[in-house]
Amino acid sequence: MRRILVSAVYVAAVFLAVACGGNTSMIIRTEVPERPAGQEDMLQYAAPPIDTVRIGFIGLGMRGPGAVERMCQIDGTRVVALCDVEQDRAEAAAGIVTRFGRPDAALYYGSEDVWKQLCDRDDIDLVYIATHWTMHAEIAKYAMEHGKHVAIEVPAAMSLDEIWDLINTSERTRRHCMQLENCVYDSFELTALNMAQHGLFGEVLHGEGAYIHNLDEFWDEYWHDWRLLYNRDHRGDVYPTHGLGPVCQVMNIHRGDKMNVLVAMDTKAVNGREYYEEHRGESAPDFQNGDHTMTMIRTEKGKTIMIQHDVVNPRPYNRLYQLTGTKGFANKYPVEGFVVDPAAAGMLSVPDGNGKTGKVDIENLSSHSFVPENVKTALMEKFMHPVQKELEETAKKVGGHGGMDYIMDYRLIYCLRNGLPLDMDVYDLAEWCCLTELTGISIENGNAPVEVPDFTRGGWNKIDGYRHAFVE
Amino acid sequence: MRRILVSAVYVAAVFLAVACGGNTSMIIRTEVPERPAGQEDMLQYAAPPIDTVRIGFIGLGMRGPGAVERMCQIDGTRVVALCDVEQDRAEAAAGIVTRFGRPDAALYYGSEDVWKQLCDRDDIDLVYIATHWTMHAEIAKYAMEHGKHVAIEVPAAMSLDEIWDLINTSERTRRHCMQLENCVYDSFELTALNMAQHGLFGEVLHGEGAYIHNLDEFWDEYWHDWRLLYNRDHRGDVYPTHGLGPVCQVMNIHRGDKMNVLVAMDTKAVNGREYYEEHRGESAPDFQNGDHTMTMIRTEKGKTIMIQHDVVNPRPYNRLYQLTGTKGFANKYPVEGFVVDPAAAGMLSVPDGNGKTGKVDIENLSSHSFVPENVKTALMEKFMHPVQKELEETAKKVGGHGGMDYIMDYRLIYCLRNGLPLDMDVYDLAEWCCLTELTGISIENGNAPVEVPDFTRGGWNKIDGYRHAFVE
Repeated sequence: MRRILVSAVYVAAVFLAVACGGNTSMIIRTEVPERPAGQEDMLQYAAPPIDTVRIGFIGLGMRGPGAVERMCQIDGTRVVALCDVEQDRAEAAAGIVTRFGRPDAALYYGSEDVWKQLCDRDDIDLVYIATHWTMHAEIAKYAMEHGKHVAIEVPAAMSLDEIWDLINTSERTRRHCMQLENCVYDSFELTALNMAQHGLFGEVLHGEGAYIHNLDEFWDEYWHDWRLLYNRDHRGDVYPTHGLGPVCQVMNIHRGDKMNVLVAMDTKAVNGREYYEEHRGESAPDFQNGDHTMTMIRTEKGKTIMIQHDVVNPRPYNRLYQLTGTKGFANKYPVEGFVVDPAAAGMLSVPDGNGKTGKVDIENLSSHSFVPENVKTALMEKFMHPVQKELEETAKKVGGHGGMDYIMDYRLIYCLRNGLPLDMDVYDLAEWCCLTELTGISIENGNAPVEVPDFTRGGWNKIDGYRHAFVE
Repeated sequence: MRRILVSAVYVAAVFLAVACGGNTSMIIRTEVPERPAGQEDMLQYAAPPIDTVRIGFIGLGMRGPGAVERMCQIDGTRVVALCDVEQDRAEAAAGIVTRFGRPDAALYYGSEDVWKQLCDRDDIDLVYIATHWTMHAEIAKYAMEHGKHVAIEVPAAMSLDEIWDLINTSERTRRHCMQLENCVYDSFELTALNMAQHGLFGEVLHGEGAYIHNLDEFWDEYWHDWRLLYNRDHRGDVYPTHGLGPVCQVMNIHRGDKMNVLVAMDTKAVNGREYYEEHRGESAPDFQNGDHTMTMIRTEKGKTIMIQHDVVNPRPYNRLYQLTGTKGFANKYPVEGFVVDPAAAGMLSVPDGNGKTGKVDIENLSSHSFVPENVKTALMEKFMHPVQKELEETAKKVGGHGGMDYIMDYRLIYCLRNGLPLDMDVYDLAEWCCLTELTGISIENGNAPVEVPDFTRGGWNKIDGYRHAFVE
């Protein structure tokens, strides 16, 4: 059920525009439920430290088994329970636990609501959810209501109803509700974030992100075609978090800035529909998800973000990850490159092309081209993020998307064990996921601007900038 | 004077949205003046052949002298007259004509309306306009009314009033009105266009273009700071044609498809304003042009275009030029690459890595990565555009933006001499320039969708695809 409101300004705009051709503000607003009395926000929330984090996993198809494997290699964890509809998947995951010499985990399988039994246990601290998209929020809500912290695969929620439900449940139960967005932990993104926080790009005014990944070889892997069916039924950017997350961290979203408005636009569905029809042998004249979708977002502080989604066209994998600052620039795909503020970079000692060490050659920091390869290497090394520096070697050994999955899980456990705020809170989840429904509203209303709600309900400017928490 | 209309659908939308949450269509419409009775469109218009094209140049500051030099090297031209406000510029251009052993040209200079005297002459076929932006349309209109064909630097028009004026004047006087968009003649763009027309990308669903060019080293070159002053006073993408032109040719805009709607969004002005204040020593709290502007466009056939503008941030030069097709992909910046339809490319014989010639290795045409370098080279060679093939050697010798300026001028003269339709008509000019005003309207109205008028007034579907004209 879409709750589309139309702002008062918007109604007035019609007449203003006709009457005097003046500036108007036309925006579609969705309902922001009032925070229940006595309930507080989860900004910088830290739960009491947990010595050994007892984990229950729900969903052991594509992403789940890898998570079990990683958690078995992180100190201070215990895999208590494993759950999947399919028995063989639960048992395969149990084999992983055994292989790492860990105590046996309890298994749950055989029905579509067996996950509730896992959540009902009283010896679990964290429920790790890697089911298909449409189960994420329901399971997370139930788990929090049964006293568990939750970590949810992306997108953690597919609608505004689900998002507000997760926010209210997290605020009410005082349980962490973190989205498992791994791309914020990828090497280039972490380094660029650190560089941005050190001022090497000046003020970052514009950021881009995307999920451009041809899924031809993956469609068969989704249990009962759930992803194909979801795309058949939904227009808009239904998978926005990998692109949006890293940019939001750089832009300090709900830590001094907030997203105000978005507009989305898509192409017609061609490859998506054709693939569906061939794969399932049934016609889909109303296939909804456009082959290519883009979204523009503007923030309170006058910055912009552009996000794209394309999982059906024959393109090289690309998450864009591009930052345009007043004094620098970062670009990840198809080639990594930086332009940086000479003043900020001048503090650096870097090796020149001959391996000698000296000051950065300011002349090389041309505003018209990327810094030379040796300067780039020196920058990447110097500004390796503390999170990554600590874990680089282990992460590469353990693997999982070049280490970013391991860093993600490690940080989650590190923060829980030390009683620190998590790297991503429930408002990050809300902001990164809200595109799934809001872009559809924009597109279905002729590419109209749509308000991005303040999911903190007034708290977006309380925290001064995004930071990872560490033990002092 | 902005003529913003609001569609009837839009007024209804407010109530629809409130009443039932249903789909609505909200769009700002601008006025489309009715075509005067008896006036016909200029689609595929061909003027009588001109044996020797007699040219008058107006504006000899930045782009003018290069054009004079190129035209002196093209057969079948005569440089009849040269005009600039500044005497020394007119005389310097006269020196170019002399240097090439051409007959002396008449000189006009000394006042801001001296260009009218050039247009009043009866021995000129073509007026070539390279003044600052805000004079383009006025001069072009006057020249057409005095019997001349006109070629106008980009953007040829800065407002819808100017655009409709040029269209009506061209239609009424039956004179060509071509915009000098050189980027459509750049090597990669021409080749990719040819590949698209041969089906190597399948159906091109999405295209991107941009003008991302840090102008720090150029601002001093603009006569009396005209460009800086223009940006001070105007929000929106004020320089869209280099990015939009090449994509529109691939998408057959007004030759089977048309742009229906655009939405634009910008960042706040930071570097632009700071540069202005330092350079001119005066504060500009109301500096209008955002540092980074983006525009999304959707076409009648369900395709999309994304255009960006950034002339103040420290980024590498980038016009994007990216095509996403159902069976292939082309990308120009920062590295050139293709993904192509194996079926279409399978017809090719290309050298492999060892220099041997064989069939393209279909296995290499992975949908997840660019074709290998040797395949790319073979594709670029095989699909070199006929326009470019003919002129490649000469163009490289004569120069001017890697040859694209020369090809542009050569094609203009070739078509005029042979009585052929020009490569770009007045509707291309209108479509590519309309962003200058329409993006401002969108931004000033809260990123509202704005209708892109059908500048052909009903003729957009008469021609089946874009083609360059050649003598049979």
